[in-house]
Amino acid sequence: MRFENFPLPDRTPPGNVRVEIKAVGICGSDVHYWRKGRIADFVLTDPMVIGHESAGTVVEVGDDVTRLKVGDRVALEPGVPCWSNPACREGRYNLDPDIRFFATPPHHGSLAQFVDHPADFCFRLPEHLTHEEGAMVEPLSVGVHAVRRAGVSPGKTVAIMGAGPIGLMTLMAVKAFGADAVAITDIKRDNLDLAMKLGADVALNPDRDAAPQEVATWMRAALPPNGPDIVIDCAGFEPTLQASIYSVISGGKVISVGMGCDHAHLPLSTINCKEIDLMGSFRYANTYPLCLNLMASKKVDVMPLITHRFGFSPEDVAAAFDCAARSAETRAIKVMFNLP
Amino acid sequence: MRFENFPLPDRTPPGNVRVEIKAVGICGSDVHYWRKGRIADFVLTDPMVIGHESAGTVVEVGDDVTRLKVGDRVALEPGVPCWSNPACREGRYNLDPDIRFFATPPHHGSLAQFVDHPADFCFRLPEHLTHEEGAMVEPLSVGVHAVRRAGVSPGKTVAIMGAGPIGLMTLMAVKAFGADAVAITDIKRDNLDLAMKLGADVALNPDRDAAPQEVATWMRAALPPNGPDIVIDCAGFEPTLQASIYSVISGGKVISVGMGCDHAHLPLSTINCKEIDLMGSFRYANTYPLCLNLMASKKVDVMPLITHRFGFSPEDVAAAFDCAARSAETRAIKVMFNLP
Amino acid sequence: MRFENFPLPDRTPPGNVRVEIKAVGICGSDVHYWRKGRIADFVLTDPMVIGHESAGTVVEVGDDVTRLKVGDRVALEPGVPCWSNPACREGRYNLDPDIRFFATPPHHGSLAQFVDHPADFCFRLPEHLTHEEGAMVEPLSVGVHAVRRAGVSPGKTVAIMGAGPIGLMTLMAVKAFGADAVAITDIKRDNLDLAMKLGADVALNPDRDAAPQEVATWMRAALPPNGPDIVIDCAGFEPTLQASIYSVISGGKVISVGMGCDHAHLPLSTINCKEIDLMGSFRYANTYPLCLNLMASKKVDVMPLITHRFGFSPEDVAAAFDCAARSAETRAIKVMFNLP
Amino acid sequence: MRFENFPLPDRTPPGNVRVEIKAVGICGSDVHYWRKGRIADFVLTDPMVIGHESAGTVVEVGDDVTRLKVGDRVALEPGVPCWSNPACREGRYNLDPDIRFFATPPHHGSLAQFVDHPADFCFRLPEHLTHEEGAMVEPLSVGVHAVRRAGVSPGKTVAIMGAGPIGLMTLMAVKAFGADAVAITDIKRDNLDLAMKLGADVALNPDRDAAPQEVATWMRAALPPNGPDIVIDCAGFEPTLQASIYSVISGGKVISVGMGCDHAHLPLSTINCKEIDLMGSFRYANTYPLCLNLMASKKVDVMPLITHRFGFSPEDVAAAFDCAARSAETRAIKVMFNLP
Repeated sequence: MRFENFPLPDRTPPGNVRVEIKAVGICGSDVHYWRKGRIADFVLTDPMVIGHESAGTVVEVGDDVTRLKVGDRVALEPGVPCWSNPACREGRYNLDPDIRFFATPPHHGSLAQFVDHPADFCFRLPEHLTHEEGAMVEPLSVGVHAVRRAGVSPGKTVAIMGAGPIGLMTLMAVKAFGADAVAITDIKRDNLDLAMKLGADVALNPDRDAAPQEVATWMRAALPPNGPDIVIDCAGFEPTLQASIYSVISGGKVISVGMGCDHAHLPLSTINCKEIDLMGSFRYANTYPLCLNLMASKKVDVMPLITHRFGFSPEDVAAAFDCAARSAETRAIKVMFNLP
Repeated sequence: MRFENFPLPDRTPPGNVRVEIKAVGICGSDVHYWRKGRIADFVLTDPMVIGHESAGTVVEVGDDVTRLKVGDRVALEPGVPCWSNPACREGRYNLDPDIRFFATPPHHGSLAQFVDHPADFCFRLPEHLTHEEGAMVEPLSVGVHAVRRAGVSPGKTVAIMGAGPIGLMTLMAVKAFGADAVAITDIKRDNLDLAMKLGADVALNPDRDAAPQEVATWMRAALPPNGPDIVIDCAGFEPTLQASIYSVISGGKVISVGMGCDHAHLPLSTINCKEIDLMGSFRYANTYPLCLNLMASKKVDVMPLITHRFGFSPEDVAAAFDCAARSAETRAIKVMFNLP
Repeated sequence: MRFENFPLPDRTPPGNVRVEIKAVGICGSDVHYWRKGRIADFVLTDPMVIGHESAGTVVEVGDDVTRLKVGDRVALEPGVPCWSNPACREGRYNLDPDIRFFATPPHHGSLAQFVDHPADFCFRLPEHLTHEEGAMVEPLSVGVHAVRRAGVSPGKTVAIMGAGPIGLMTLMAVKAFGADAVAITDIKRDNLDLAMKLGADVALNPDRDAAPQEVATWMRAALPPNGPDIVIDCAGFEPTLQASIYSVISGGKVISVGMGCDHAHLPLSTINCKEIDLMGSFRYANTYPLCLNLMASKKVDVMPLITHRFGFSPEDVAAAFDCAARSAETRAIKVMFNLP
Repeated sequence: MRFENFPLPDRTPPGNVRVEIKAVGICGSDVHYWRKGRIADFVLTDPMVIGHESAGTVVEVGDDVTRLKVGDRVALEPGVPCWSNPACREGRYNLDPDIRFFATPPHHGSLAQFVDHPADFCFRLPEHLTHEEGAMVEPLSVGVHAVRRAGVSPGKTVAIMGAGPIGLMTLMAVKAFGADAVAITDIKRDNLDLAMKLGADVALNPDRDAAPQEVATWMRAALPPNGPDIVIDCAGFEPTLQASIYSVISGGKVISVGMGCDHAHLPLSTINCKEIDLMGSFRYANTYPLCLNLMASKKVDVMPLITHRFGFSPEDVAAAFDCAARSAETRAIKVMFNLP
C-alpha cells in the first residue's frame, strides 16, 4: 500500500462536482483487498485507490449541475450506474453489471484529497450532520437495503447474526423500520454490549463452536412466540447461515449480507419445507436520502460505532488499516480517516 | 404394504362430504414412504393409508354443506388447515403447522374406496374433465405454486431443472403464465422429448456427471440475451441447485421445489453478489380453482403425463408402486390408479 | 335505543369463550346507526346490540379451546370470517362477504355484559395493558391496516386528512411504521393540538371552505422536498379526497379510510397522469397481535384519545351517545364505557 | 397543421442514432392536440412535430453506441428520462417530471423523415417483424403497462371497458398474461367483433345511455363465479369508471388508462367497502423488449388493428388525421403512415 499522485483533469467534467474529501471510513472489503487482493469474485490486478465510505465539501461544480454549489457538504454514493442495462431501468441499479463503484476493480476509490463524482450521486448533508456522519451513510445503506429486502416493519421480529459494523448498522435500521423485537448474536461480547446500547432487545453470546441448531433454539426462545420472522445474516459464515435457516419461522425470510465465506453447506429440505426466502443482499440502491433523514431525525445515531480515528499521512494510513485488520484485539468497529 | 379395512363413521361429519374415490396418482413422496418410511422431516411410525392425488364422486353430503350435492365429481385438495395459526390467516395456509394433509403422518391418505373430506376442499370438476384430470390437479398445483412464487409472466425467461412429473407440470404452468421462453434439462432423454411436446423451447440433456457451471453456461446460452430470469429446480440435488444459482441472472429468482437431497453445498457469494432470491416452495395454497380453469380451457393438458394405469386389487397396487419406483426402467412419469 | 336482555346459551359453544365485557368504545359508525339506522350500504332493519370496540375478562372456556383460560383479560376482534370464501383463504378475511361482525346487521354488537366469541378472535392483553387499551385495539387496527396498505416506512412522507379518532390512530401508526415526516390537517384546532402532542411534524388548520388545491399546496410545502409520498384520507369528504389527490407525488398512494360521503367528484386525469393508487381501506385483518405489541412497547399510547368515560346504566348510555354525537361541542375524541 | 423543415445537426450526438422513419401510427392524443391543442394538463403553446408511435431504420450511429449499427431496423421508445429524479432511479421512469417525450410540449414528435434518438431507447426489430409492427409497440406498451399494474395472471378474470385501439391492445396483453377469461364492452359493435376475433371471451354492447349499474350487472354475470377480479378502463368516461367500480370484486383492482374526461363523480363508499385499488396507469416503462417478444412469438398479433394506411405527402397527412378523427364513421382503429 502506498501514497500516489493521481492527476485530476483541469476541470471537473459536466454533470460532476469536485469534492475535497474530509472523512473516509474503512470497510471490511478494503481490508480484504489490502490483505488478499480480492473479495468474492472481485480480484485486484492493478494498484487501486482504496475507500468508498466518504464525504467531503464541493470545491468545483461542473457544467449542467444545478442542485449543488461550491461549499456544499456532501456524502458520496460510491456506485454510479450506466442507466443502459435492464437492472438500472427497473430500479435495481446496484445490480448493474457496468456500474462504476469506488474501489472495485478497475475503478479507483475515494481515499484521496480530491475526487470528481457525478452530482446526482452526491447528497447534501443536513446542516447539523458532520462529514463523519456523511461517510457513515455508506455502511448504513448496506443495512437499510437488507432491511428493505426483508420487509421489516411493525409486526415482525428480527434476528441479526453478527454484531460487527454491518450488523450494528442493520440493527439500527431494523429499529428504525419498527420491528417488534430484535435479537442479535456474536461471539464478541463487547460488540453485543454496544448492540444493547443501540437498542437490541436481546443479545446472545455463543461460544465460537456452538452448534447452529443450538443457536437457533436460543434465537427462537429469545423472540416469542414463534421465533424470528426475519433473520439477517451479517456474518456470512456457514454456521451463521445454518443457524439463520434453522431459527426463522415457516414462511420467513433469511437475508444474507455478510461475505464470510464463498460456499456453505445448507439444509435445503428446511428451506423447502419451511418455504423460506433466502435472499442475497448486495450493496444498495436509493438509500442515501433515506439514511440522511434517519440520521437528521436522530432515529439512527451512527457516532457510537466510530471507535478509532486517524489522519491522512502514510503512517496514519498504515496504522489505521492495521487497527481495522486486528479488530479482535483493538476492538475497532469503525475506523475513520479525517482528512485535513 | 397391505390392504386394510378402515371403518368410516355412519354419517359424514358436518361440513364434510363422503367421496367415492375414482382416481389416485402415485407421487414420489408415496414411493419414499413406501421404501424408506420417511421424507425430509416427515417420519412414519404407524401404518398409514397412502395417496393424496385424488378425485372421486360425492356419495353423501354432511350438514351445513350447500355448495356440493350427491353425484358431483370432485378433485380433493389434500391439505386442510386449522385456520387458527397466523400462516392460515395470512393466506399461506400451506405453512400451517397444524394442517391435516393426506398421507402425511399421522394423517391417512386417500387411496381408499371412500373418504370423508371437508366440502370446502372438494372442487367440482367441469363437465368435460375426467376423474384422472381431477387427480392431476394436485401435482399441477405444486407447479403452479412454484410459478406464482417465482412471478413468472411475459417478459421473463425460465429454466427448469428436472423433467420428472413435477418438472413437467411446472413447465406447463410456466407456459400458461406466459413466460417468453422456457428451457428444461434432465439426464433422461425420454422425459425431455415429452417436455418438447409440451411446449419447452429448448431441452438440454447433460451427462449425469456434467459440472454445474457447465450446465449453467448452456442454460445461459439457451435463453438469450442474458440467461434465465427465473430457475425452478424440480430435482433438488446439489448439482441442480448449484447450476440454478450459477445460471440465473443478477436479481433473479431460484425456486427450490425438488426434494432430492436434505443438504447441499451452495455458492453463497454468488447468491449475495447476484442478489438472488433462493425460495423454497412447499405444496400450494389457493391453486385448485385456477388449475381446473387451466385444464378446462385447454391451456394445460395433463393427460400425456399419465403413462401407466392400474386397478385397485392388492396385486395392482404392488405392481403400480413397483412401476413408479423403477421409473428409470419403466419410463413411468405418472402412475394412476383407476378405482371401480 | 334501549336496554334489553339477550339470553346466552347455558354453555359457551365449542371453540368459544364467554367474556365479561369491561370496556367498550363508541365508534362513529355506532353513532351513525343510532341516528340514521345506516352507514354506507349497511342498513338496520331490526333492533341490534351496538358496539364493537371491546375488551373484557374470560369467564368460561368452551370445548377445544386451549389458548385461553378463565381470568384471561382479552381484546375482542369483532369480525369472524367463514374461512370458506377466497378472500378468507387469501389472507384478506376483512373482505369475506359472509363475515360475522359485531354490530353490523344482522349481527349484534358487544356492548353487553357477556359475549360469546371464538377464542381465535380473543387476544390476551399483556399484563400492564388495561381493558380500555384492549378496547382501543379496534380503532388502532383501522389505522394500522390503512398504513400497511399504504406501505408506510422510513423514506416516505405522509399526509393525513382529518384528526378525529381514526386520523389520530392513523397518525400513531404512521409514526410507528417509521415515516420520515407526517403532516395532518383538520378544521378543528383542538384535534390538531392533540395531533402535535402525539408526534405530528406539521399541523394545518384550514378554513372549512378552503379550496382543495390550496390545501394541497400547503401539504406539499409542509413535506419537502416533493410533497407527501402517501396521503391517508381519514375524513372521506369530497374536498379531502380532492386535496389528497392534488397533493400526493407522482406514483404516490392515496388511502381512503374515512366514510364522510358516498360519492365524490374526483380529478380523474390527475389520478391517471400522476399514476396514483387510490386505495380503499376497509376494517383490517391480522392486526391485533401487532397492535398489542405497539401498545405494550409504548410505541403507541392510545390513552390520550380517551376524552370521556361513562358507566353502563341506561342514563349513562344515553349521555355517552349524546356526547359522542355532539363532538364538535363536547370536544370528545373517544368516548368509553367502563362496565362494572 | 403543416409540413416544415427542421434541421438536424451534422452528426447525430454521442449515444444517439439517426433513424430514417418508416412507419408512424396516429394516436388519440395526436388527434387531441390537432383539434384542441391540449390533452389533460399538457397544453400546446408553440408549433410541434406530432407523432410518437414510430419505427425506422438506423442510418447513422453516434459515438459510444455499441449495440446498434447502420441498417438496423428499430422501434423507438418515445420517452427518454433524465435518470436524475427519484422516479427514474426507482424503476418508474414514466413518471419522471423531466422526461423528454415525443410530441409532448415542448418536445417534438417523430412524424418526420429523420429523427435523432438515444440508442438506449431504440430497440432492434426481430427479423420477421415489420416497421409497422415496430410502430405498434408503443400502443401495445400502454396495454402491457396497465396489465402489469393490474397483476393479470392465470386465476384472474378481467373486464375491459372500451374496445378502441388501447382497449384492443390491452385485450391482447391480458390474453398474453394468461387471464382465465376476458370480457370487453363498447358501444361500437364493429370494435367488439374485432375484439372477439382477437380472443375476447365475451363482448357486451350496451346502449350509449345504459346505466353503469346495469353494465356492471352484465359484467359480473359474464365472468362467473364472482365477476371480474380486475377491470381496465380504456375509455375513461364517468360512466365507464362507475361501471368498473361497481362490477369489480371486493379486493379487486380497477386500472384507469383512458383519458375520456378530466373529472368524474365516483362511488367512494364502494371503493372503501370493497377495498378497491383504483390505479391510474400512465404510459409505460420497461415494456419494449417484452412487447417485441410477444409479437415475435405470435402471442400478440397487432396487424388486424391497422385499418387505414397513408403516405407522407401533405394531402396524405390531412386525410389521415381526418380519417382518425372521424373514426365513428370511418371505422378506423389504427391509422398508419408509411414513409418512403
